[in-house]
Parts: sequence; C-alpha cells; structure tokens
Amino acid sequence: MDNTQIKSLIKSQKDNYSLDQEFYTNDDIFKIDLENIFFKQWVFVGHTSRIPNVGDYFLFEIGFESIIIIRDKKNIINAHYNVCRHRGSRICLENEGNKKLLVCPYHAWSYKLDGSIQSARLMNGNFNKNEWGLHRCNVKIYEGLIFINLSKEPISFEEFIEPNKPYIELHGIKDAKIACRKVYPTYGNWKLTLDNFHECYHCQPSHPEFCLVHDPEYILAYGGGSGTGPSSEQFSRRLAQWNERTKKLGYITGEYSERNFNNFSRGAERTPLSEGKLSETRNGYPACKKLMGKFKEHDQGYTSVGPSPFNSLLMCNDFATLFTFIPKSTLQTDVELMWLVHKDAEEGKDYNLLDMIWMWDKTTIADKRIIEDNQKGVLSSKYKPGPLSQMETGLETFKNWYLMSLDLALN
Amino acid sequence: MDNTQIKSLIKSQKDNYSLDQEFYTNDDIFKIDLENIFFKQWVFVGHTSRIPNVGDYFLFEIGFESIIIIRDKKNIINAHYNVCRHRGSRICLENEGNKKLLVCPYHAWSYKLDGSIQSARLMNGNFNKNEWGLHRCNVKIYEGLIFINLSKEPISFEEFIEPNKPYIELHGIKDAKIACRKVYPTYGNWKLTLDNFHECYHCQPSHPEFCLVHDPEYILAYGGGSGTGPSSEQFSRRLAQWNERTKKLGYITGEYSERNFNNFSRGAERTPLSEGKLSETRNGYPACKKLMGKFKEHDQGYTSVGPSPFNSLLMCNDFATLFTFIPKSTLQTDVELMWLVHKDAEEGKDYNLLDMIWMWDKTTIADKRIIEDNQKGVLSSKYKPGPLSQMETGLETFKNWYLMSLDLALN
Amino acid sequence: MDNTQIKSLIKSQKDNYSLDQEFYTNDDIFKIDLENIFFKQWVFVGHTSRIPNVGDYFLFEIGFESIIIIRDKKNIINAHYNVCRHRGSRICLENEGNKKLLVCPYHAWSYKLDGSIQSARLMNGNFNKNEWGLHRCNVKIYEGLIFINLSKEPISFEEFIEPNKPYIELHGIKDAKIACRKVYPTYGNWKLTLDNFHECYHCQPSHPEFCLVHDPEYILAYGGGSGTGPSSEQFSRRLAQWNERTKKLGYITGEYSERNFNNFSRGAERTPLSEGKLSETRNGYPACKKLMGKFKEHDQGYTSVGPSPFNSLLMCNDFATLFTFIPKSTLQTDVELMWLVHKDAEEGKDYNLLDMIWMWDKTTIADKRIIEDNQKGVLSSKYKPGPLSQMETGLETFKNWYLMSLDLALN
Repeated sequence: MDNTQIKSLIKSQKDNYSLDQEFYTNDDIFKIDLENIFFKQWVFVGHTSRIPNVGDYFLFEIGFESIIIIRDKKNIINAHYNVCRHRGSRICLENEGNKKLLVCPYHAWSYKLDGSIQSARLMNGNFNKNEWGLHRCNVKIYEGLIFINLSKEPISFEEFIEPNKPYIELHGIKDAKIACRKVYPTYGNWKLTLDNFHECYHCQPSHPEFCLVHDPEYILAYGGGSGTGPSSEQFSRRLAQWNERTKKLGYITGEYSERNFNNFSRGAERTPLSEGKLSETRNGYPACKKLMGKFKEHDQGYTSVGPSPFNSLLMCNDFATLFTFIPKSTLQTDVELMWLVHKDAEEGKDYNLLDMIWMWDKTTIADKRIIEDNQKGVLSSKYKPGPLSQMETGLETFKNWYLMSLDLALN
Repeated sequence: MDNTQIKSLIKSQKDNYSLDQEFYTNDDIFKIDLENIFFKQWVFVGHTSRIPNVGDYFLFEIGFESIIIIRDKKNIINAHYNVCRHRGSRICLENEGNKKLLVCPYHAWSYKLDGSIQSARLMNGNFNKNEWGLHRCNVKIYEGLIFINLSKEPISFEEFIEPNKPYIELHGIKDAKIACRKVYPTYGNWKLTLDNFHECYHCQPSHPEFCLVHDPEYILAYGGGSGTGPSSEQFSRRLAQWNERTKKLGYITGEYSERNFNNFSRGAERTPLSEGKLSETRNGYPACKKLMGKFKEHDQGYTSVGPSPFNSLLMCNDFATLFTFIPKSTLQTDVELMWLVHKDAEEGKDYNLLDMIWMWDKTTIADKRIIEDNQKGVLSSKYKPGPLSQMETGLETFKNWYLMSLDLALN
Repeated sequence: MDNTQIKSLIKSQKDNYSLDQEFYTNDDIFKIDLENIFFKQWVFVGHTSRIPNVGDYFLFEIGFESIIIIRDKKNIINAHYNVCRHRGSRICLENEGNKKLLVCPYHAWSYKLDGSIQSARLMNGNFNKNEWGLHRCNVKIYEGLIFINLSKEPISFEEFIEPNKPYIELHGIKDAKIACRKVYPTYGNWKLTLDNFHECYHCQPSHPEFCLVHDPEYILAYGGGSGTGPSSEQFSRRLAQWNERTKKLGYITGEYSERNFNNFSRGAERTPLSEGKLSETRNGYPACKKLMGKFKEHDQGYTSVGPSPFNSLLMCNDFATLFTFIPKSTLQTDVELMWLVHKDAEEGKDYNLLDMIWMWDKTTIADKRIIEDNQKGVLSSKYKPGPLSQMETGLETFKNWYLMSLDLALN
C-alpha cells in the first residue's frame, strides 16, 4: 500500500464509525504508524525508582530498537541505543541490572554510563574516540517519570507536558516508587488496543470488577473520559458537589482537553469516586495507608491523565496505576502497567499489594482477551466499519486525531 | 505473480504430468484458489445431527473467515459470519456449544439465532436496527448434510446436487448421526492433498490397511474412481455379476461422471466389495448391526460420491465415511472426517467404533505423512512435473478441471 | 531490492568498516548470496567414514534443497537430489541410514544407489526409464572429504583444491574417521557468522578456553589467519625457530593465501602451538595417542586450512576439527563441526573424546550467543558500519572477496 492509497483511504473514513480493516491489519500502515506517530511522541517508559542506584538500568524495546535506560555517576538518567558502535552487537543482554561500565560482550569496546566511549583496543591511528559514543535517544525526566522520544527532532517537552502538570503534580509521582509492574502481551493492533481503552461502553458487559468499583452513572457519562457518554443529571450533581468540597480542601478540580487539532492528544480530569469510596479497590477502602502527593486527607477523587495515546495515569489518593501501550507488530501490542505508591510505604505494613492491583490486573487480562477476539473478527472479509454508540466519543476523538496525524505525516 | 503470468503458466501445463511447482507453493495462486475455487463451490461442513437442539452451534473456519452454523427456534439451520456488526469482534469464541441468543462478548450487542439484531444499547437516533443483522453465508441442508457456499452469487444448489441424489439417498444420510469426527491437519497444499485422494497408485506401497480391505483388482481398475486404472477383466466380471444381483435386490448400480467441463467436479459410483466382505472393516464383517437407508439386507456394495473436490462420501451398507478438505494456507490443509451410522444405533450395543474408523483413520494418518513429504520435495528447485501412471487418471481429470476453472476465474 | 540497488550499495561500502545493514538482513540479498556464492563453491559436507558401507547415506539440507549422499555398490559416493522424479516426494525421510534401493515411499518408484531408475509400475507405453533417473548434484571426494557443488557448471575442482593439498594431505584426513559431529543452529546471517570466524579480536573478551590453549602473541598476530593482527616480534621469533626445526623433521611449513581476486577464497598456514604444548587441549597433552597422517612424532604445529568461506580445517598432529557453515535463511546459519581422529584409534583406549572437543565445543557455543546478539543489534535503525581494528584484517579480506563476488554475479 503506497502513501497515495493510504491518503485516499484516510479521506474515505466515516464519522462515528470504526476504521476500515486496513488500519488494523496492514503492515505498511503499521510501519508508518510506528515512525510517524509513536516515534514522534514523548512516551514514559518507566519511573526513576526502578533504577535508584548509579549503574542501574533497564531495557525498553520496540520494533527492532532496544534502548538502555541507565543512571550515570552524576545521577543523570540516560537513554542509549543498545547497539555497539563497532560492529553493532547488543551491549546489555539482560532486561535489567547494574553496570559499572557498558562493556560490549563481543570485542570489549567499553562506554561510560553517559554513553561516551571509554576504550577500544588496537584501533588504527586515525580512530577518534569522540566520534564513537553510543547513539543517544531523547530522554526527559518529569516527576520521576522517564519519557523518551525516538524522533530526530523531538517536539518541545515543555510545551507537551504543560497542561497535564497540575494533575500529575497533585499526586506526588516524583516521591513515589513502583509497587508492582506487569506486562500483558496482546495479540491485536495497537489501535484496537487503544479503541478499547478509550471507551467504557464495554465495561458493563466485560468488566464486573470495574463496575463494582465505579458508579454506573460515572461509567455512563465519564467512562472513557469527560464527555464520552450521554449526560447524567445524577452524576453532574455529584460532580458539582464534589468540586465545591474539594476546592475548599485546596485540591485542583476540573479537566483539560485539546480544543484544536495539534501534535498532542492529551487529556486530564478529576472526578469523584462512588459515594463513600476512598480508593479504587474492591471495598472502597484505601489499599495504602500513606497518602500520595499533596493529599493530607482523602478527597474521594479520581484523577485521569492521558499525556499521549501511549500512556495513561489513573490515580486515587493512595496509589496510581500507570499504563504504557507499546506497538510490537501489526498484530501485537504490549500493555505495561506500573502501580505506584508513596516511596516510604512498606508492603504488608502500609499497603496490601493484591488489593491495589486487583481491579486493573483483572480488567487488563479481560481486555487482552477482548482485543484479541476483536482482531480475529476484524481480519474477516465481512468486517466493515460499524456505527459507534453514544458512549464511544472518546474513541472517535482518538480516531480523528490519529487520521489527521497520519495524513499530515504522509505529506 | 499477476494474473497474466498465471494464465500463461496454466497454458504451459502438460497433459499427463503433475502441475508446475508454483501451483503448490505460490501465495498469490493460493489466494485465487480460495476465492475462485473453494468459495464458489457448495461444500458440506457438517451434519445436522451435530446440532440437534435449538441454539446448538459449531464454527467452520477457513482462511480468516469464521462461520457460525446454528439451529434457530424455527429449527432452521443458519450460517452467520462470526463478526459483530458493531466493531467486528468474534461473537462465538468456543468451537461449539449452545446459545439462547448470540451476544457479542465485547459490547453486548445481541442477535437472534436467525441473525437479526435483538438489541444494541445507547445507539444514536438514526440507528436502524434492521440494517445491522449478522452477515449471512449461503447455506443449504440436503439429507442432513450442511452445505455452505461463500460466494456472493452462488451457483444453483439444485443443479449441483441433482446427479448425486440417488447415490446419497440410498444410504439414508438424513437418518444418520455422527459416530465420530476427527481433523487431520496436513502440512501440504490443498492440491497435493487432493492429488493424493484422486489416485490409488500409492495404495499398494503406502496403505496396507486399505489393501487388506479392498480387492487388488478393484484397486487397480477403480481405486481413484471409475476408469482411473487399467481395465481388469476379473473385476469387470465381478462388477457385472454384482450389478445384476443388486438390481434384483432393487438397489441402484452404475455411476455418474461429468461429460463436459462445467462448474462442478462431481462423480458417483457403486462397486462390489471383495468377495465375501459385507463392510469396509478389517475382517469384512459389519461394524454396525443396523443397516442404513434403503438397505434391508447387505448388498455387499460400496458407494463413492464426490459432490465437489472438497468433499467425498465413501459408504458401506452399515456406515459412511465423509471427508471435507479445508485449504488453510498455501502449505496447509485440514482433512476432516465424519463417520456416520444409523441414528438409532447405539455404540457398544449396535456398533463398535474402533472397527468402524480403523481403516480410514490409519489411511488418513498415512496420507498426512505422504503429502507432507511430497510438499517438501515439491519445494526443491529440482522438482519438475513428472509423468503420470495408468492409475492416475483421476488426478489428471481433477487437474484439468482445476486448470480450466482457474483460467475462467482469471478472465 | 533489485540488482541495480544492490550494485550501488556494494559500491558505497567503505574500506575497513563492517558492511551496511542490508547485507545482514535483506531477503533479496540472501537469495542472491545462496545462489551466487554458496551454490558456486565446492563445500565439504561430510567425510566418507560417515558412510562406510554400501547403501549408507546421510542427508545434507540447505534452503529448500535436500541432497542424499550415498555409497553405491561400486563403492562410489553419489549425491542425489532427494526428489522423486514422479511427483516430487522426498525419498529418504530419515537424516541418515542404509538403503539397498532408493524406493520412494509414495508410489514405490525405485532407483539404484547410483541414481538410475530401477522400476516404475504401470507407466504408459512411451515412458522411457532412462530419462527419469534422480537429479544429480556435483560431488568430488578428496582425502575422504565429500565436496558438493550445487551449480550447473561447477568450477574446476582440481584448480580449486590444488593449493590446499599439501596442508590437508600432511594430516592424513583420508585415513581418518569421525569421532564426533555436532550442529550449532545460530540465529544470525551467515556473513555475521563468518565475520566472527575471521577475526580473533573477540577471543580475549569472549573465549577464555581458546585463550588458555593458545599463546597471546599468536592470537594477536595470527588469530584470524596469517597477517590478520599487528606484528609480534616475539611470535615471529618463535615461528622462525619452529619453521627451521619442523623443516628438519620433514614436514611442510609456511602458508598459502590468494594474491589476486578470483573465484576462490582459500587460505592455509602452519604455526607453532604455545611453548610446550603438543595439542589443542586444555593441558596441551595430546587427546589421542595415535598420530595422524605423515606425523611420526609431534612437531608441535597447528595447521589451518580454509578451502572456501564455508569450510575450515583446524588440525593438530593427533586430531582435526572441521567446520561447515550452512546458510539456512537470512537470519539463520547452521555451524556443523566434525572432529576427526586416526581411523584405527579407539575411544577410551587411544583417545578421550571430551578432552578433544572441549575447546571448540565451548568456543562455538559462545560464538553462537555472540553472533545472535550481534544480529539483534544490526537490526536496529541505529546500526551503522563501524571501524575495524588492527585485528580484523581477516574479516576485511573476506568482506572484499564477498563484495567483488556478489558484484560479478549481478552482471
């Protein structure tokens, strides 16, 4: 499929219908998606608490790329391509670990933790060490979140993060640590995975755990983000009351959403949990005794932040669930979850891990199955785009941003 | 490989030689085969006794297509594409089962068993339920056999089935039930699988069980169908005698074969079993006490019916072995066998299952290996079409029908 | 990638740098490599001692080709394509064995061990048996080594083998037998596998066993063949002394290397082992009591012969380690090792197998891992050719021969 064909396909997509089959199955479109959508976004791939000590590292892998995220002696976190500059060997072979020096296991070329070359034996006279440091990947640390960007000329990180700042900073992500991390390999295109994440029309049939924790009226009106469902008078009333009370407590309320099309696809909002619930757990009690960030008492609120299509932060007062969506191939996406708690919280004493991960672990396992069955059906010759419901506005918004971004990339 | 190249390749095939490598290995030709040969034929994929109750269903899968074969409240058997009209999810996830309603597991759109939509929550005002029933696949029931046809404008079922009718009806397939069903996944192109099925030149070296059950003179003259081997005076005499005796008993004899090229590739014939044998079992005794269909006593005959290249019925008086050949990919074919007995026969009391399936189970397992070794050799650069023997006329007939059908499809 | 693009890529390669990514990852280039480099070389694939008796055979498999190497009744070793001339089935299904007659398991066409047809049942009148013998592969036996060549018009075997003769004949390979044979499937392009074999820059970081056995100065100056490292005065002195002493003993010394580009990529050399060592074992003692070939006493020498890029012979006085590199697909190469000893040597009594295979088994397992990690890195978009060290001259020589051979093949 060439670019002209793809552009004409983009043009033929109908409002309020799902996308044509090709967008979910075509290898050429996937390649363009990866290089023009994913590689151009700032995506967080971890939290600094995963690599607390000098030399600690982990690998982030996407497509054929492997990135070493490593803390150097100046406590700076670097992102290096895991490719020796000599003859291309992988340097770090384990998924995570600690290195005093990055020594290539093949010929022992060695690099400092900041990526500059330390030594290369027996090179010819004209060899200039300065030219042969590791290839660097753009990296920014914000509130402990490690964002990378795989493009050559990344868009401004500051411009990107600005509108989400108050929502993230409220929760003290900087002073958090990872309580648990899980990866859910999902055999479906990344857009089917995100379609699923952008609507809660499927929550009632598919996610009993989510529906136990969250209010039906919230799910109806707000499941996939603000304004993604039909209006609910009941929930509007609850929201207004909660906003008022929360403002008095001194915490931020309200929402952010993009007004016009731009490079970003961001959103943020604060909403009340169900009446009487303090946290996103089965019984509504907190999973962790220590509150995070600016909270001095429970405000019974729930904060959703989506800095890009590939990340989400869903946060109660006592813990946060972070999502990274990693396109692996046309028909596979990895969904990685990190649960964060206050850095001083102790498992067993301050928090119960199983209570904390219960809902999103169960829900993500169910979504994996759902997306895989969706992908199978979408491969049929009889799959044609179907009409969206009143609860799939979030998906429609994402779809339109995607189509415009892709169209621009093909110019 | 484009259509012009394929047409020129068709033209260059030699009479009485096997096909060129490309026909057994090329992905473009496979795709055309699937859509222009398989999808245009009426193929039986099951028997009504597999789904006796309202709501009983099974799936038939080919390529990326999954078809739900389901009995509705009016006792009509429907074939629906297993693709939700909303966003394309698979609806039935299990291979077989029972459903009161076809509810999509994703967003709970529900369909009646006849495929019409029952409910879709929260759709926008202009949503017209009548437009969103399940995509239907052509289906016909004949003598309990469930035939489907995946083309848009299927050829006439009545015209198709006409010449095979007396042969099938003799055996009372309508009043039968499935005693056993097995699938043999075979790593070879579907045409290598059918080449194997259309000749008995390989029976003597490869199938001791078949040769124990059937008369060497029958195998020589008739193994791959009437007129597929050198004439055998001895067998002709036996056939003439048997025809005479059987006519007296009031049962049909003789054969059907296509005279001219047409859309169909049908054949049928009745022949005597070996002297003294009553059934296609190791010792020649019946595997089932209850006779099928019109038989009041054993006529010692054997009925072969091939309604299309993708099906075969091989029938004794007491049981029938039915074949479905399902092209899965260029290099894979599933061979599905169903053994049918009289619907009132009871296992253990009336029939012994192991006796019944013994020969075709052993023989199909051997054919699986044979076809796989054939495919490996055909992938070599040194494979060139070889000359056919006097016992491979059946294969030559199938080959010529295939080439002409393919050529027509490319116009 | 078409031939013009490949030719222009060849032109853009830089001296003393590794190759561009495409050469290690592109399927079109792999196909051309196989047919224009591998298939045109004489490659040994076994030793006559593997098939000592009439009817003994083994299979050699590359790409979609399977070759039967079999000893016939006249004690001639034949190489036949494992493809029946009738409808293409594989004839030999096991990796090795003994056959009185080559009978196709499908329809029982049978061939004599020399490949001529013995019988084909029931063929039509105009069938001429003489035309339907097995396709033959070029084969030559030299000193017990079985060389094959898969091209239509093979280059002269005599011209090919001439310069390596004295080095191979010294070691009595003709009077040897296989003590052990192992295959190491390696997930890397064949050129990454050979790059690895053509330099010893990686030996110090990666091969402790090799470095224990061989002298550091030898590794520095000679690891990847004569003149592949910086000069070592110390080793030059040792070499001169050893040459003198060895000449007195009456054994060949010195080396062979190609002066100008030609169809072949051959090399041979004799060097001394470390001071005091008699063999390539952990402690330097012989692994086998019986000396091979012309040796009457240990001359403490080591002979390396590379008749083509796809074979190597590394020989002490008491045993020889033989390598065959078999490209399987763009990203996979099999490395096959054979250890040879004197034909009369008895395991346990005359030789200890574990001592003998210790170094090259450990080293080849390590190389498998190294090459696989190299391939992963080379797939990254950030892999660019890197500068070679003073110890990678052997790799540079191989690279240039490969580029010129490929360029010629594309004319």
